[in-house]
Amino acid sequence: MTAQVTRTGAEAVGAVDTRDIEAYMTRLGQAARAAATAMRRAPTAAKNAALLAMAERLQAARAEVLAANERDLARGRESGLDAALLDRLALNEARLDAMVEGLSQVASLPDPVGEIDGLRARPSGIQVGQMRVPLGVIGIIYESRPNVTLEAASLCLKSGNAAILRGGSEARESNAAIAACIRAGLADAGLPEAAVQVVATTDRAAVGRLIAMPEYVDVIIPRGGKSLIERIAREARVPVIKHLDGVCHVYVDATADLDKALAIAVNAKTHRYGTCNTMETLLIDAPVAEALLPRLAAAYGEHGVELRGCERTRAILPGCAVATEEDWDAEYLAPVLAIRVVDGMDAAIAHIERHGSHHTDAIVTESYGLARRFLAEVDSSSVMVNASTRFADGFEYGLGAEIGISTDKLHARGPVGLEGLTTRKYVVLGDGQVRQ
Amino acid sequence: MTAQVTRTGAEAVGAVDTRDIEAYMTRLGQAARAAATAMRRAPTAAKNAALLAMAERLQAARAEVLAANERDLARGRESGLDAALLDRLALNEARLDAMVEGLSQVASLPDPVGEIDGLRARPSGIQVGQMRVPLGVIGIIYESRPNVTLEAASLCLKSGNAAILRGGSEARESNAAIAACIRAGLADAGLPEAAVQVVATTDRAAVGRLIAMPEYVDVIIPRGGKSLIERIAREARVPVIKHLDGVCHVYVDATADLDKALAIAVNAKTHRYGTCNTMETLLIDAPVAEALLPRLAAAYGEHGVELRGCERTRAILPGCAVATEEDWDAEYLAPVLAIRVVDGMDAAIAHIERHGSHHTDAIVTESYGLARRFLAEVDSSSVMVNASTRFADGFEYGLGAEIGISTDKLHARGPVGLEGLTTRKYVVLGDGQVRQ
Repeated sequence: MTAQVTRTGAEAVGAVDTRDIEAYMTRLGQAARAAATAMRRAPTAAKNAALLAMAERLQAARAEVLAANERDLARGRESGLDAALLDRLALNEARLDAMVEGLSQVASLPDPVGEIDGLRARPSGIQVGQMRVPLGVIGIIYESRPNVTLEAASLCLKSGNAAILRGGSEARESNAAIAACIRAGLADAGLPEAAVQVVATTDRAAVGRLIAMPEYVDVIIPRGGKSLIERIAREARVPVIKHLDGVCHVYVDATADLDKALAIAVNAKTHRYGTCNTMETLLIDAPVAEALLPRLAAAYGEHGVELRGCERTRAILPGCAVATEEDWDAEYLAPVLAIRVVDGMDAAIAHIERHGSHHTDAIVTESYGLARRFLAEVDSSSVMVNASTRFADGFEYGLGAEIGISTDKLHARGPVGLEGLTTRKYVVLGDGQVRQ
Repeated sequence: MTAQVTRTGAEAVGAVDTRDIEAYMTRLGQAARAAATAMRRAPTAAKNAALLAMAERLQAARAEVLAANERDLARGRESGLDAALLDRLALNEARLDAMVEGLSQVASLPDPVGEIDGLRARPSGIQVGQMRVPLGVIGIIYESRPNVTLEAASLCLKSGNAAILRGGSEARESNAAIAACIRAGLADAGLPEAAVQVVATTDRAAVGRLIAMPEYVDVIIPRGGKSLIERIAREARVPVIKHLDGVCHVYVDATADLDKALAIAVNAKTHRYGTCNTMETLLIDAPVAEALLPRLAAAYGEHGVELRGCERTRAILPGCAVATEEDWDAEYLAPVLAIRVVDGMDAAIAHIERHGSHHTDAIVTESYGLARRFLAEVDSSSVMVNASTRFADGFEYGLGAEIGISTDKLHARGPVGLEGLTTRKYVVLGDGQVRQ
């Protein structure tokens, strides 16, 4: 692997030598570990001051940031990036406004650090509780969107962590310009600049090293395509909070209110096609298939959604395409929907267990007993009754922020906000107690 | 690696073929995954019935279990196991009584599964909360104590998980006899026998496979010596909840009540020498060193504790041995204590940060401000004020059980009880809401 050294961001802070990747990443790790100690102790006021100072620095540097982004875009167009990628890469005045606004929103969120839960007296006389504390150093690996640099930095900072950010090579000039604003904002508030470091090389070996330094990095959060995330999860020697895509289901039970079912099924599919909480397969209980499917087909027709059905679906909707086994496992991220008629909730749950991705699954029912069972028995990060799967989102859940959605079981599951970037330690308050 | 097939436990349940380790472990994994689905839905009453049935089965099988244990002990003596290992391996009437009693204690604990926290209404009209659910399949790898087989099984069962247990080869006949009681108890209560499976081969390749089947195993909990745990953490492709040993500190501040300091320092060192929450280094603020050290030396002398001090300690206690750099990092697990005189709390925290293991650290102080700062700034799984480090324990903390102590940051930190064997998913209750 050859070292494709990028100096743009590096030059701004002096002589950053990225030629020896291992040594460079080790230096970043050491600096992050030292900064994490300071950040763990940083008062809420200092963290909020840094967030607001970053917003001011970004306002002042709008022209530079947009110019850097224009250079990234030009290079991207030359190298033949497709339109969707170029759109994700692009910054403009409106997107900069949203980034500035995002910083003050994060500043206004409650600080999770230091909260003590469940402090209670024990028979020995000690009091025991759990205090929320930062994780330490968080490595974030992401792709083309340069606004992720600012968003990830702001959430790690607010939760008292140090961050090492590794963005996509196509956004390297934009990221370097944003990183300069972040560093300046940290310095303005008297916090260590190494609290947020942006990796200043596009050499892929830097990622390999970042995910294998447990002595300097406490957790890795990859954001991006499935293949990137799978590779990182496979090779990491540091815990990974995974933010995978979703094969989400809506099951319409025989007792469902069909108007609610129609509204939810249409919203869950058509509200946005490319998001991980979009429904990909609709399961319909046999007794209501005949009443519901023609209405659904009409509604989906208006949105241009292609339907692929099982045999029983096609018996009711003769024009519907055939769903194959692959369709049950597909994450279309497109105006395509698989439909299957099933015999009752147990068959629906069995389908979800076999084909789902443990992301978000919903039932539409008026049965109290079935709602209770579905909530208890479906093993997904979000399980819903009579609501659109599109609600699976940190903002909709009231977390105030979202660094991603975890489909893992350990630590954080479902939308991950500030709390997911913290952990809890035990605190014990005594008055001279000893163990008998 | 040759397959050292053990048939003792296997024969009891029929034709278990352990010759092809990979195929055998895959079958265990598949059976565990299927059992986990049933266990996730098992009512509290059925889980408690199984625990009590296991207690009855164990009572009825006392003679067989003790005979199996005698065979393990005889083989251990022949192969030259040391006295400490033989003691850990040995069962007797009193230890069997404790195991039976432990089962009814676990049955009497509240069931964590299904608890919903923080259900609250959102502006969209949905209600969002978090439901506690089992992790799924837990692999536990441990060494010589056969009672761990029963204890681990009972905690996994109560928390609604399926378990695959891999005990030490030296305890294989004891473990097989206990496993038979576990299976019978599960069957008595109508729960799947595969909810708790004991690996019926001592081939080390079985461990290698167990920690690399993320499709069948959700988390690995290793219990045992440092080298076992480090190897597992390094090679696992499944998340690991680590239960490491501890280099714990007590810092006596200048404002401390010296009677409390004496009581805590003596208890933290001498209550038990071989436990991970035993103090290994005592840090003393310079202004109180002269008043405290002679009293401490007298008390430790009565317990036969060897002291190793820094230069300033030795200036006050001339007979004290010299502490070298290695002493600050040592986990003695023995009647040996390192002592260092420091200049104030910041120096003490710096020492703990450099030499500690993030397990348990305590301050003795009468200063409100220093107590608050110590609690916030020391990055350990348990941080204490005016209490002995020996309190870092699931039972002392009121968890009702303890599967181990985690010094990791993600998921569980500190003593891990039933709650640490569960995770939380989001539940959303709606009435037809769609996302705008």
